[in-house]
Amino acid sequence: MIIVLRAGATEGDVRQVEETLRVKGLSAHISRGVERTIIGAIGDERKLDPELFEGLPAVEKVLRILSPFKLVSREFQKEDTVIDVNGRKIGGRAIALFAGPCSVEGKDMMVDIGGSVAACGATFLRGGAFKPRTSPYAFQGLGEEGLKHLAEARERTGLPVATELMDPRDLDLVARYADIIQIGARNMQNFRLLTEVGKLDKPVILKRGMSATIQELLMSAEYIASEGNRKIVLCERGIRTYETATRNTFDVSAFPVLKSLTHLPVIADPSHAAGKASLVEPLAAAAIAAGADGLMIEVHDRPEKALSDGPQSLRPETFGKVIERLRKVAEAVGRTL
Amino acid sequence: MIIVLRAGATEGDVRQVEETLRVKGLSAHISRGVERTIIGAIGDERKLDPELFEGLPAVEKVLRILSPFKLVSREFQKEDTVIDVNGRKIGGRAIALFAGPCSVEGKDMMVDIGGSVAACGATFLRGGAFKPRTSPYAFQGLGEEGLKHLAEARERTGLPVATELMDPRDLDLVARYADIIQIGARNMQNFRLLTEVGKLDKPVILKRGMSATIQELLMSAEYIASEGNRKIVLCERGIRTYETATRNTFDVSAFPVLKSLTHLPVIADPSHAAGKASLVEPLAAAAIAAGADGLMIEVHDRPEKALSDGPQSLRPETFGKVIERLRKVAEAVGRTL
Amino acid sequence: MIIVLRAGATEGDVRQVEETLRVKGLSAHISRGVERTIIGAIGDERKLDPELFEGLPAVEKVLRILSPFKLVSREFQKEDTVIDVNGRKIGGRAIALFAGPCSVEGKDMMVDIGGSVAACGATFLRGGAFKPRTSPYAFQGLGEEGLKHLAEARERTGLPVATELMDPRDLDLVARYADIIQIGARNMQNFRLLTEVGKLDKPVILKRGMSATIQELLMSAEYIASEGNRKIVLCERGIRTYETATRNTFDVSAFPVLKSLTHLPVIADPSHAAGKASLVEPLAAAAIAAGADGLMIEVHDRPEKALSDGPQSLRPETFGKVIERLRKVAEAVGRTL
Amino acid sequence: MIIVLRAGATEGDVRQVEETLRVKGLSAHISRGVERTIIGAIGDERKLDPELFEGLPAVEKVLRILSPFKLVSREFQKEDTVIDVNGRKIGGRAIALFAGPCSVEGKDMMVDIGGSVAACGATFLRGGAFKPRTSPYAFQGLGEEGLKHLAEARERTGLPVATELMDPRDLDLVARYADIIQIGARNMQNFRLLTEVGKLDKPVILKRGMSATIQELLMSAEYIASEGNRKIVLCERGIRTYETATRNTFDVSAFPVLKSLTHLPVIADPSHAAGKASLVEPLAAAAIAAGADGLMIEVHDRPEKALSDGPQSLRPETFGKVIERLRKVAEAVGRTL
Repeated sequence: MIIVLRAGATEGDVRQVEETLRVKGLSAHISRGVERTIIGAIGDERKLDPELFEGLPAVEKVLRILSPFKLVSREFQKEDTVIDVNGRKIGGRAIALFAGPCSVEGKDMMVDIGGSVAACGATFLRGGAFKPRTSPYAFQGLGEEGLKHLAEARERTGLPVATELMDPRDLDLVARYADIIQIGARNMQNFRLLTEVGKLDKPVILKRGMSATIQELLMSAEYIASEGNRKIVLCERGIRTYETATRNTFDVSAFPVLKSLTHLPVIADPSHAAGKASLVEPLAAAAIAAGADGLMIEVHDRPEKALSDGPQSLRPETFGKVIERLRKVAEAVGRTL
Repeated sequence: MIIVLRAGATEGDVRQVEETLRVKGLSAHISRGVERTIIGAIGDERKLDPELFEGLPAVEKVLRILSPFKLVSREFQKEDTVIDVNGRKIGGRAIALFAGPCSVEGKDMMVDIGGSVAACGATFLRGGAFKPRTSPYAFQGLGEEGLKHLAEARERTGLPVATELMDPRDLDLVARYADIIQIGARNMQNFRLLTEVGKLDKPVILKRGMSATIQELLMSAEYIASEGNRKIVLCERGIRTYETATRNTFDVSAFPVLKSLTHLPVIADPSHAAGKASLVEPLAAAAIAAGADGLMIEVHDRPEKALSDGPQSLRPETFGKVIERLRKVAEAVGRTL
Repeated sequence: MIIVLRAGATEGDVRQVEETLRVKGLSAHISRGVERTIIGAIGDERKLDPELFEGLPAVEKVLRILSPFKLVSREFQKEDTVIDVNGRKIGGRAIALFAGPCSVEGKDMMVDIGGSVAACGATFLRGGAFKPRTSPYAFQGLGEEGLKHLAEARERTGLPVATELMDPRDLDLVARYADIIQIGARNMQNFRLLTEVGKLDKPVILKRGMSATIQELLMSAEYIASEGNRKIVLCERGIRTYETATRNTFDVSAFPVLKSLTHLPVIADPSHAAGKASLVEPLAAAAIAAGADGLMIEVHDRPEKALSDGPQSLRPETFGKVIERLRKVAEAVGRTL
Repeated sequence: MIIVLRAGATEGDVRQVEETLRVKGLSAHISRGVERTIIGAIGDERKLDPELFEGLPAVEKVLRILSPFKLVSREFQKEDTVIDVNGRKIGGRAIALFAGPCSVEGKDMMVDIGGSVAACGATFLRGGAFKPRTSPYAFQGLGEEGLKHLAEARERTGLPVATELMDPRDLDLVARYADIIQIGARNMQNFRLLTEVGKLDKPVILKRGMSATIQELLMSAEYIASEGNRKIVLCERGIRTYETATRNTFDVSAFPVLKSLTHLPVIADPSHAAGKASLVEPLAAAAIAAGADGLMIEVHDRPEKALSDGPQSLRPETFGKVIERLRKVAEAVGRTL
């Protein structure tokens, strides 16, 4: 950590910073320039909170040298993490393909859609039983009944299932049915929920918050990892910007940036990013081209009657054709789908 | 709701929209223009999710006529909501003043700071016992011990206390000690938590999420109100933008905009918006001038040793002087402080 | 245009809107609902500025039905615009490839780099002679001398050259040397400059402003088109968001969205979007996969000595390898490169 | 400047940075930590472009110590700049009040509105003769005719006039009529225009770009100052964010932040920030409370017939009452209006 003092800082100001460093077990390297005095912290920077210094009137700015996350960093682990879920992999050369409806709406629809997407090459089923909805008057999901339908669809298709957890009180229930637990964008900084899934031995998909920086996403992953669970899959699903032509702005740069900073697999959710079925294919293709390790795509047999997210859902037959075309893009960048 | 069809939409497309409206209990008013056919929904728009129509290939856009929130709207209740907490008011002519440390760090500090801010005119005490922190390695709050210190400070000062709830599992515990429950910015769309505090008979401060629109803030308030709890205080605390000179961008327009849309009181948290002690006074003054009903200000006796948010905390003596100056601004706009 | 009146609007308010419509040559269709009165404008909406009605106290909101641009819209012209520049095409199945240094720094370097990129498959040369720089103390470009070096490189390689115009006073000068004129992101709403290039018979690359919406980009293109020049190439180069991990956020959704709204070709500038050489390839691949019609890539023989944009420039040898890999992605989506 | 090398950087990498520094006339201070090697540049950092180092593969990040602007900085000049325009001041204890229509629409209206606002205490007249409009089909201003009407209004009221310059070719014309030249938000980084007004001996109002950072605004002011013109007035007029409830987000923090970084006066344009007449008063009050040195307010005698910006214009009678109330806020913070 580098602490830059304001012009006119006194020797007393320098002493104060030195003293704070000493208390935290670090030492100071002082460099007096013509315009500014700069203090370098010698020792483990991660023990220091920049706020310790930003509060001092003589301090102009505090610059971090190291990233604040560790266990999830590429520096900590050089090789890519590959997660195995009953023989299906996330990470590695093959692109993982999660597909299914936004909400589980019934057993038959779940089993039918599950069968269709499995036939098209999906490697995981998705479906929400607990749904975060902006309006209290909107459909909130089927709860445990939905989880049972998911389990039924797994039974029939052999595909592992992923579903969202919104509340620590539902942890046991959801963990009983789900192979993979999803933490939604709105809960990316629900730290209590992160701590709880960190104690499980089950893969977790962590979606990037609507206005989370890449660093904040990694810090949330660090929360899970620091509790012991290293089976973490990051998911880019679009960020909030001033642009209103799309529901969110799909941050395609996040794939190469994340792959350089972390060893964790990173997947894409083009359906939520776009908010429109016609944009799912181009965004999915872009994600693969930019290095995504997986896709999560919403499929519904009757999008116009879906209880949530209809506009962005693909029909099963469209999904099949889209996957065929995406397969070529995957091959062009040395991956399989 | 107005449904605009694409150029070239067929009679069949019109029928499909009409049919969907009929199923939901509304009827259609069709207007065929030279360039577009437009369908107006006749009946209760709030029963309709725009997604029902956005999913149809022939639909170009869907425009809402009414706002999606109701109970919290100014249309539903004309007069301002004024919340009474043991004789102290939030809403109305007097500006509510919440003050105290970011985190409760011990009994003595809490009691000392409580005494100081009470002497300067604070009407409520604040202090966090459960702290949402970006890093798993940072101080997470004292938990129940912190709540006890808060209660002790209330005992000594006579001021009601407000503290944050992060997890539905802590609800009973927090409700036992707190007079007002705070929902933090990161939990503004933690819908399960909103539903739980909606069942309480206790005021709730709902902070605006870092990238929440004003409409989303009101929808989250509607979640609480729809469960029965109407004692809701909204809090503007800065939003995330591209500007990095301040931690957040304090959206001062939110005060007049919210006051026109809702009957709920709206307070300001200039400490979190700014992230810097020197900005607290100008932002607090701006908030009052723009119509805020209250202020929440972080005060710490030794900001440079604070376990969280030191840089933005005022010392008690500074706090006193700031309040004296803010009082003049309040009077200039016909309020008291 | 749909004009929604506030609850409680009077007959007089309705008359006032009707009267304003009549003055502009349109008529009103009035629909009185239970909660709101809605007025539809019958006639050519493009003659109306929403501000005409937003100013009225009784008006709650004004909703546009049609897009405000016309000549550049897909509705106005169904087939893709393909621009021919001395036999080289922009638009159509082949992906146009613009390459060269950020700034022209000398004749030799320009000719050398030109030769290298031509050998790798570039179809157009780029290079700045007039440079917009954030700091007045930074290198501002070689001016006319730079234009001459560009012309020399064109002579040697046979590739048409594109260069930026910043000032209407330089129009004749730049037009004398350049085959394609580039309007930079900072000048996307320099309407006087747009009007001037609109009078030329020369292709114009219009870069999206740093915080321009897709609609604003199209309105700026409409400025050029309305003066007569229809040879317009749109360019996505990243937008400004809260994320700081990349210089800009590359809005990859802009390709499919723009291709649906306009008949103009849309190219990508992954170099400026990323600000880092290592991100150029993944972003270029993503752009192709999402439907871009061309790429603009910065190439420099000694990036570490470049007078501008060194960090994001590729060396010629790297460029060659990148293009080889991108070619496979282009083929996977049915394009050539 | 601090240059942080990646983990694993070699001695050769260190030499390369040292060498680059030496070429630019600076020397290197090398500090080898356990996890990173850090190189501090000793000498005048402003000669260095961070890009020089960001391009090197071994460099992880480059941190500036000093701000990149100088002449406009508070460090360069401690005392506030006060600009005198024919006896009227901008800067200092009295708040400057610019008022008038968005566009000059005719002589009578300009003279009438001028008279009205002068009577209410305006100290400067504003009015646009050249208008930047998003649509090529919208009213573009009266040009020289409008300038003449402005001059006429000055004649009658005795108030200096401010008007926008959009094109360097209009410089002589506009400078002939205007007392103060305004550079609009869309031209904040039109560097050629900045350079031209930098050569004048006439005050310049520089509006913050829609997505400009505070640092970029100061760099644009530096452009003007570096040409010799130090009579610069900065203007906050709202920034672009994800929030759509207001046209722009008024960044009220910009006042205290700018006042700490620069000696230049900073004024507020609440009319453009809000986009709605009803928001002008609360935002103006907030600006004054936060330390603004002036206000620029749009006034129109018939807002519903205004050729531009009607919705945000105040009627003269409303303007008078608003100013009376704002006067109290000004007095509360020790200013006059």
